[in-house]
Amino acid sequence: MTVEVLSNGVNGVSKSVPSALPLVQKLSKNHDIVLKTFRLLIADLCQQFNGGHPGGAIGMAAIGVALWKYVMRYAPHTPNFFNRDRFVLSNGHTCLFQYSFLHLTGYKAMTFEQLKSYHSDRVDALCPGHPEIEHEGIEVTTGPLGQGIANAVGLAMATKNLAATYNRPGFDVVSNHTWCMIGDACLQEGVALEAISLAGHLRLNNLTVIYDNNQITCDGSVDLTNTEDVNAKMRACGWDVIDVEDGCFDIEGIIRALEQARASQHKPTFINVRTVIGLHSSVAGTAAAHGAAFGAKGVENMKTAYGFNPDGHFVIDETVRQFFQDIPARGEQWVQEWNQLVSNYSTQHPELGAEFQARVRGELPANWQDHIPTSFPEKDTASRASTGLVFNPIAKEVKSFMVGTADLSPSVNMIWSGKVDFQHPDLRTTCNINGDYSGRYIHYGIREHAMCAISNGLAAYAPNTIIPVTSSFFMFYLYAAPAVRMGALQHLQIIHCATHDSIGMGEDGPTHQPIELATLYRAMPNLLYIRPGDSEETAGAWLAAIGAKKTPSIISTSRHALPQLSQTRRDGVAHGAYVLAESESATVTLIGVGAELSFALQVAEQVKAQKGITARVVSFPCQRLFEQQPLDYKREVLRRHRGIPAVVIEPYAPNGWERYADAGICLTRFGHSLPGKAAYNFFGYETDVLTTKVAGYLERLESDVFLRGEFVEL
Amino acid sequence: MTVEVLSNGVNGVSKSVPSALPLVQKLSKNHDIVLKTFRLLIADLCQQFNGGHPGGAIGMAAIGVALWKYVMRYAPHTPNFFNRDRFVLSNGHTCLFQYSFLHLTGYKAMTFEQLKSYHSDRVDALCPGHPEIEHEGIEVTTGPLGQGIANAVGLAMATKNLAATYNRPGFDVVSNHTWCMIGDACLQEGVALEAISLAGHLRLNNLTVIYDNNQITCDGSVDLTNTEDVNAKMRACGWDVIDVEDGCFDIEGIIRALEQARASQHKPTFINVRTVIGLHSSVAGTAAAHGAAFGAKGVENMKTAYGFNPDGHFVIDETVRQFFQDIPARGEQWVQEWNQLVSNYSTQHPELGAEFQARVRGELPANWQDHIPTSFPEKDTASRASTGLVFNPIAKEVKSFMVGTADLSPSVNMIWSGKVDFQHPDLRTTCNINGDYSGRYIHYGIREHAMCAISNGLAAYAPNTIIPVTSSFFMFYLYAAPAVRMGALQHLQIIHCATHDSIGMGEDGPTHQPIELATLYRAMPNLLYIRPGDSEETAGAWLAAIGAKKTPSIISTSRHALPQLSQTRRDGVAHGAYVLAESESATVTLIGVGAELSFALQVAEQVKAQKGITARVVSFPCQRLFEQQPLDYKREVLRRHRGIPAVVIEPYAPNGWERYADAGICLTRFGHSLPGKAAYNFFGYETDVLTTKVAGYLERLESDVFLRGEFVEL
Repeated sequence: MTVEVLSNGVNGVSKSVPSALPLVQKLSKNHDIVLKTFRLLIADLCQQFNGGHPGGAIGMAAIGVALWKYVMRYAPHTPNFFNRDRFVLSNGHTCLFQYSFLHLTGYKAMTFEQLKSYHSDRVDALCPGHPEIEHEGIEVTTGPLGQGIANAVGLAMATKNLAATYNRPGFDVVSNHTWCMIGDACLQEGVALEAISLAGHLRLNNLTVIYDNNQITCDGSVDLTNTEDVNAKMRACGWDVIDVEDGCFDIEGIIRALEQARASQHKPTFINVRTVIGLHSSVAGTAAAHGAAFGAKGVENMKTAYGFNPDGHFVIDETVRQFFQDIPARGEQWVQEWNQLVSNYSTQHPELGAEFQARVRGELPANWQDHIPTSFPEKDTASRASTGLVFNPIAKEVKSFMVGTADLSPSVNMIWSGKVDFQHPDLRTTCNINGDYSGRYIHYGIREHAMCAISNGLAAYAPNTIIPVTSSFFMFYLYAAPAVRMGALQHLQIIHCATHDSIGMGEDGPTHQPIELATLYRAMPNLLYIRPGDSEETAGAWLAAIGAKKTPSIISTSRHALPQLSQTRRDGVAHGAYVLAESESATVTLIGVGAELSFALQVAEQVKAQKGITARVVSFPCQRLFEQQPLDYKREVLRRHRGIPAVVIEPYAPNGWERYADAGICLTRFGHSLPGKAAYNFFGYETDVLTTKVAGYLERLESDVFLRGEFVEL
Repeated sequence: MTVEVLSNGVNGVSKSVPSALPLVQKLSKNHDIVLKTFRLLIADLCQQFNGGHPGGAIGMAAIGVALWKYVMRYAPHTPNFFNRDRFVLSNGHTCLFQYSFLHLTGYKAMTFEQLKSYHSDRVDALCPGHPEIEHEGIEVTTGPLGQGIANAVGLAMATKNLAATYNRPGFDVVSNHTWCMIGDACLQEGVALEAISLAGHLRLNNLTVIYDNNQITCDGSVDLTNTEDVNAKMRACGWDVIDVEDGCFDIEGIIRALEQARASQHKPTFINVRTVIGLHSSVAGTAAAHGAAFGAKGVENMKTAYGFNPDGHFVIDETVRQFFQDIPARGEQWVQEWNQLVSNYSTQHPELGAEFQARVRGELPANWQDHIPTSFPEKDTASRASTGLVFNPIAKEVKSFMVGTADLSPSVNMIWSGKVDFQHPDLRTTCNINGDYSGRYIHYGIREHAMCAISNGLAAYAPNTIIPVTSSFFMFYLYAAPAVRMGALQHLQIIHCATHDSIGMGEDGPTHQPIELATLYRAMPNLLYIRPGDSEETAGAWLAAIGAKKTPSIISTSRHALPQLSQTRRDGVAHGAYVLAESESATVTLIGVGAELSFALQVAEQVKAQKGITARVVSFPCQRLFEQQPLDYKREVLRRHRGIPAVVIEPYAPNGWERYADAGICLTRFGHSLPGKAAYNFFGYETDVLTTKVAGYLERLESDVFLRGEFVEL
């Protein structure tokens, strides 16, 4: 096999085809037995523990054969082969479809025994109810509908960016295609519709979406809820559309469609494949085939009709095994060819080759921290501006970062000097946009959810090869929350820059003022939610986020200017909380956070001056980082074990602060549209009022024996 | 004026036109001065406090004149006139557009002084940065993009349902139209795309969306991120499309388009109006016009160019005042006509008339509680099934409830005997679907976010006239969270039925197992998040939710069967938490919640039997309801003030429980795909393990002086 390069060389719009596969003339004659065996395998796997989703997997059998046997480029024995085609099962509930092909094509981890663990109580099973990224051969965790297709858009963008950055004539070191299966549901989910629109705009011709069009969802016919012209809609969104009428049997037709899609020069491709859910079962074509086993008798009947032994289970004939037998070796040859290609490339382009290989290993340049300023201007600075001061010099120099915004470029301050947009290069002329696929600034549009779901795909391309950065107002990370969660679940490093994170953002009012959202993100496993209080802490936040290789972060910043505090320390942020102002004689600890940190310091001064009360002050930018500290450190920071009560000052819902504080000056109602300072005043966030509340609380504590141990809202 | 009925009478597809308006032949000759005055007014209002969003409002001036002067049916002096046309400003940041027309057309609350409060620090201003439902003339609160258009779909559905239910030949008591302005952003947001697709499917010909097509967003040209063919996309989604080329000046053309849209017989209409953002300002047609004032000089220049006095501010000429002068009287005549119509209707159809008028007043039938069973079967019952037992008899009888699902009908158990779908009646024949517009079961499709945003519109039609009920898996209420929040912010009564609410839901795995989501909803202001533990508590949850007239609720239920507990009480739920098992000699309180409530009772028995420890048990279905109880009640339930430690058992993130408990057997990691019971076991939720943890904790408490006062994760 040789590397055949079809690339037109335009800025990563490469169409290199490693070892072009035999096409239709070399089709096997054993498709019938393979398809029947596959369908019965799915039926058996669901019947075994009487559960799961058989119908979709069975309906897609022929699509799977076309993909895994004929079209996709992958290497079962080197599952993380860098230049492999990516496959995303956006309709993740049909996971048996993928698990079965992983088994048949020789992925070593997916033994027959493992395959049969689907829906068992085996705790180390590789066959969970939806595909999970941790397991060999799975590119992204899917399940929540619409996520996978957005991830696929991200994967295709990753290819485009890496190809445009590193490919050189004769050396298409990155040239993989992304294939994504979807069902009817993904076409209804908003996040998918956002991603579809953006993929069309970006002309991702290296992305193919295969629509398992069986017209059935849980509730029954799709006609119950969706009667749109899906092909016309996809075309309007800038996609090529190919129809396959007989998706249950016509493997040749599917292969032709897939190869046509791979060869697409200008657009992503949508292949509309008509299938029958639960084909050949007694519930074929109905919702009953979707999410329940067929029953023992039903499976038996299928076997009899197929001429199989009705008493046999999990039967895979040798013919079927042989059908897939050449795949691992084929894959290893591709791996070797690619290794050789990269080796030659590195000889010809030594500097680029070294950089590329570091990217492949997920490494940052050793000096990335040097780009962070060691000090900051003393003038009041919005922490969103601090983010620009801290991060933009890094983004400028370190190609790993792809930075995007949901249409808030003027607000989020993430534009570095010389930034180039990630765009199809034709838009330079047609729309006068400074962009091409090597660009690393992504205009996601007003599509917060897709932004974060696409970022999951960018990050999932290969560990830390690309570190996606997103940006929007903090409140709109509620739109994106399902995707942020999927990033956390998948241990993907993504950095979300959330600005306008308090009532201090002002006039936009309660729809834009976050009150309860931080509670969600503080509770979300494997996520760092960080609210820095000034530029110095913002530096700490970025250090923590860039250092967290398996954890997404949200850096939550202010719209309005904040005083720069002499006591803050970037290394303090790494501990989650630390002492800003200490006193052994203190009788209260004031906890300050983020945009409101300076209130805590001001109140400490004022309770001393006006009431003679000595207060310690703790800055508390990140609860999760604090939780990771040793118990002794935590106790020493809070000193509640010494009987010193702690009062937290944060205009957010108090939920969760009860762990660290005895009282809170928090909000349990929505915000109010007022200029920032007036909004703070309206809710009592001004030094005088806060001082009175703290002093009053300490008095009440002395007189009410029950109060200690109860969290008090002041 | 007379009531001209154009209705074709098909099941609420009515096209009644009260007092058909003079059309183009009666256009005023004063449009030029009106438009100029309006644009300068917006410029002045933003310049005054040097902020706000002038560009869009200015660009839409002619659209506004067409709507408020010529096309919309409304009554400024009776702002809540039941049959008024509804107007939704989905691009809510252009709120000055609406505020200014409210002022000009004579809404009494919107005095000139109030109008000028935009962006001021006046705390009782009626001009917040985005429209708010609390204020006269505002139908829904908008701002987070994409929400408004989904609300508008709900408003149009409300009209359809009420019309199909109550209209009779000659008596179209409900016949209003819904108009919705959107900008480029709303066409990018997923929630809008979901709602657009559903509206097309439902053939809501009483809905018109007016697209302020200025091709500018915050980041610049829409070409940066969206190059799709929007008209083709809308047509593919089942909409009629009308183009207006000159949206800045061609009032006549806009009126024709609007009237054509109102007359549409089969489809919702999308009017694509080309405008120029910030028309006639120095930043016209650029992103700079979007979100910043034009500067004093810029405003002056506009005035000069218009032939206005550059030193004048907020100038509204008498010609302009007169232009709008007839509107209140016109509105009052419509109100009177409608009152007469309803009076005649009630005479002709006394029973229906009485029912209709009760609906208008937002009243439920007095006997609604009688439909709830007084007792339940003793066998183990999933609480999602309990919801069916409790609520379906009510839904069957009480027409106020419109119940929908995001394609999980088989899972959520919300189908009552004889339910009819809310569908266009033609689908009875074309798709064999049992539905028409009088139906009250809504197949939302796999569109969780739109489901909840549309429900906000259904609820906003008139207070409590329709009580929308939504349903899905709890985890997918993260997709819908921005809309759930908007419901809470707007004090709308909506009941969200969230099933599969724990790791006990099993095999679907961590993508579907909620861990941190309850934390969000417990923190969200003005929302009741209720986790009932069995059927009796489920009855209590529904009583609380249906009783909460200005508050949305989430009723969070289990997939799996739960034991029915003799100690539970529906009135206990009303208190948020209550004692299930009391003992004066108890040394620990065990807090049980929802699907895991029975664990607490079992552990209490076992710590007694095995360790001689006496435990009290508290059921804690709703934190917010508990917070509303008197302090004495709260202390008596928890008894922490008597030094009795409390341990909460809930496989959710602990955040927030620290307020009520000293220790938690909670989860700080994501779930695991295993059969339900195996998943519980995997995480230690079995009586033996829990018992050991509780006993161990009590031992540690005795030996570690610092431990008390610190929340401990067991």
